Amino acid sequence: MKKIINSPDTIVSDMLHGFVKTHCETLAFVGDSTRAVVRKKLEDKVGIVIGGGSGHEPLFMGYVGEGLADAVAVGNVFAAPTPDTILAAIKAVDCGKGVLCIFGNYAGDVLNFEMAQELASFEGIRVENIIVRDDIASAPLETKINRRGIAGDLYVIKLLGAATKAGNSFDECLKLNEKISQNLFSVGIGLSPGTHPANGEPGFYLAENEMEFGLGIHGEPGIERRSITSAHEISQLLVNYILNEETQVNKEVAICINSLGSTTLLELYIVANEVQNLLAEAGYIVKDSLVGSFCTTQEMGGISLTMLFLDNETERLLKKRAVASHFHKGV
Amino acid sequence: MKKIINSPDTIVSDMLHGFVKTHCETLAFVGDSTRAVVRKKLEDKVGIVIGGGSGHEPLFMGYVGEGLADAVAVGNVFAAPTPDTILAAIKAVDCGKGVLCIFGNYAGDVLNFEMAQELASFEGIRVENIIVRDDIASAPLETKINRRGIAGDLYVIKLLGAATKAGNSFDECLKLNEKISQNLFSVGIGLSPGTHPANGEPGFYLAENEMEFGLGIHGEPGIERRSITSAHEISQLLVNYILNEETQVNKEVAICINSLGSTTLLELYIVANEVQNLLAEAGYIVKDSLVGSFCTTQEMGGISLTMLFLDNETERLLKKRAVASHFHKGV
Repeated sequence: MKKIINSPDTIVSDMLHGFVKTHCETLAFVGDSTRAVVRKKLEDKVGIVIGGGSGHEPLFMGYVGEGLADAVAVGNVFAAPTPDTILAAIKAVDCGKGVLCIFGNYAGDVLNFEMAQELASFEGIRVENIIVRDDIASAPLETKINRRGIAGDLYVIKLLGAATKAGNSFDECLKLNEKISQNLFSVGIGLSPGTHPANGEPGFYLAENEMEFGLGIHGEPGIERRSITSAHEISQLLVNYILNEETQVNKEVAICINSLGSTTLLELYIVANEVQNLLAEAGYIVKDSLVGSFCTTQEMGGISLTMLFLDNETERLLKKRAVASHFHKGV
Repeated sequence: MKKIINSPDTIVSDMLHGFVKTHCETLAFVGDSTRAVVRKKLEDKVGIVIGGGSGHEPLFMGYVGEGLADAVAVGNVFAAPTPDTILAAIKAVDCGKGVLCIFGNYAGDVLNFEMAQELASFEGIRVENIIVRDDIASAPLETKINRRGIAGDLYVIKLLGAATKAGNSFDECLKLNEKISQNLFSVGIGLSPGTHPANGEPGFYLAENEMEFGLGIHGEPGIERRSITSAHEISQLLVNYILNEETQVNKEVAICINSLGSTTLLELYIVANEVQNLLAEAGYIVKDSLVGSFCTTQEMGGISLTMLFLDNETERLLKKRAVASHFHKGV
């Protein structure tokens, strides 16, 4: 796979300089750091820092913006941000009301965010780590604590972003997060690998007629390999897998149909049609729907489906204004 | 390349049903047509219809929305919409002030939009066809009339959308379009082909170390094949090619760095950094910047750069609120 880069050593730095230049009206680097980016206009509220490895764009950096996260700490490609970077982001957004750090459940991220949390506590900043574990194919329900985070991150950022902006307290936000995490379910299928932009290595191998159900976004093994099938059957597989686990009474849902990279919008909307039909048949009401590339692994082929089961509070927060830096122009 | 579809025969219909279901709050099919989609809430203004073949999403359908186009006519994959579909879209948006049809300069599109224009005139609807020809690598300046339309479509839609919403008359819009077309320049490089979702055929062939400068979005031959090089040199190539042709005095520009499909956001922002640096060195001021996937050819690898040279009027219109249906959630 050909990549448009300058040098393997400058990938992340070049990208972030381009990102900050592109969005210079609203975003800036944090002090001397070239790995932490912060909103220029912060409200007096509980702060939100997000972060993780790069290579999954627009996640995480694209979700810094009004009504979303206040700062992002960016790691190397597929590697956690350093504790120093995270700490810089935390200090940049803290206004005395505490800071929530949102990231996916990956060992390196957990380790470094915990270290940053400890460093922040030495400086008197209250930090809580919100670890997203929406990928229900990555571990069984009994060991939910081991599940990885994928596109569901977006809903956690969106809802906590809206809640902090509305003035919710630190503890109210933690309570809200409990509710979100109990109602957030993702599962995906991989079709073809993304390649590491630095070394050109594909993340995994699949035969031309194969797809892998439950494949992780770094190529972590899924549940099973099977022959690629129709959009209808793939949608059925994903919807059923989520509905089999979901035990909520509430039938109102938000859905996100996410491309893992090179799967096209044309395909995503075909899947959206199937998923909407399947959910309607099963008696669910889709109140909000996202279709696009939100959490990718370079040019990986495949999709993920995320479902967030809603109540009045989460539905209300979901409808609040959000302006992801990446989509700030509305086109 | 594996594609998530149901059947080659239902690709476009399945996609559009998914599209309309996803954006049902703001969009609907036009009457019985399943190929024409219209905004539910139309203003009393000059109407805008856009259209072209599918397979290039989000173009065109994604750019129906407030401050953008009012309706879209969608063709089969890489094929023009039928005159009937276009006519249905025209009639759906006409409120007696005339309708502008915006599309790229491809033979099939020109033919079918001209036929629709004639059919509309029989019904007393004034229609003008705005044919976009921004791809400056597709023909020399002397035969500008032969140039194809690529991502520059987006600026034509955005500016005319803003102008019609602001109440500009039909003739004022035509005059504005003259100005836009004289100031709109795109050029791209292809790295790897997209595949036709119906038959799995790649659009062209390139060796592993090759890139093609000026390649068309359907694989139309470019200016030259050369070895793939750094993001810096690719950016220099694209910027210089545009600046060599551009003869405006005005140094204020809007730029769009567009992925042709599988080229990642990480790479686009690296290019954005280079382009911003090169333009600053050359004395240009970037007033607005778009980075993302706006006009694609399935999972084609490569990028295009579009530059729109601004004056007060076009800069003001560019800043107006636009809500592309595809990005309406702000995330």
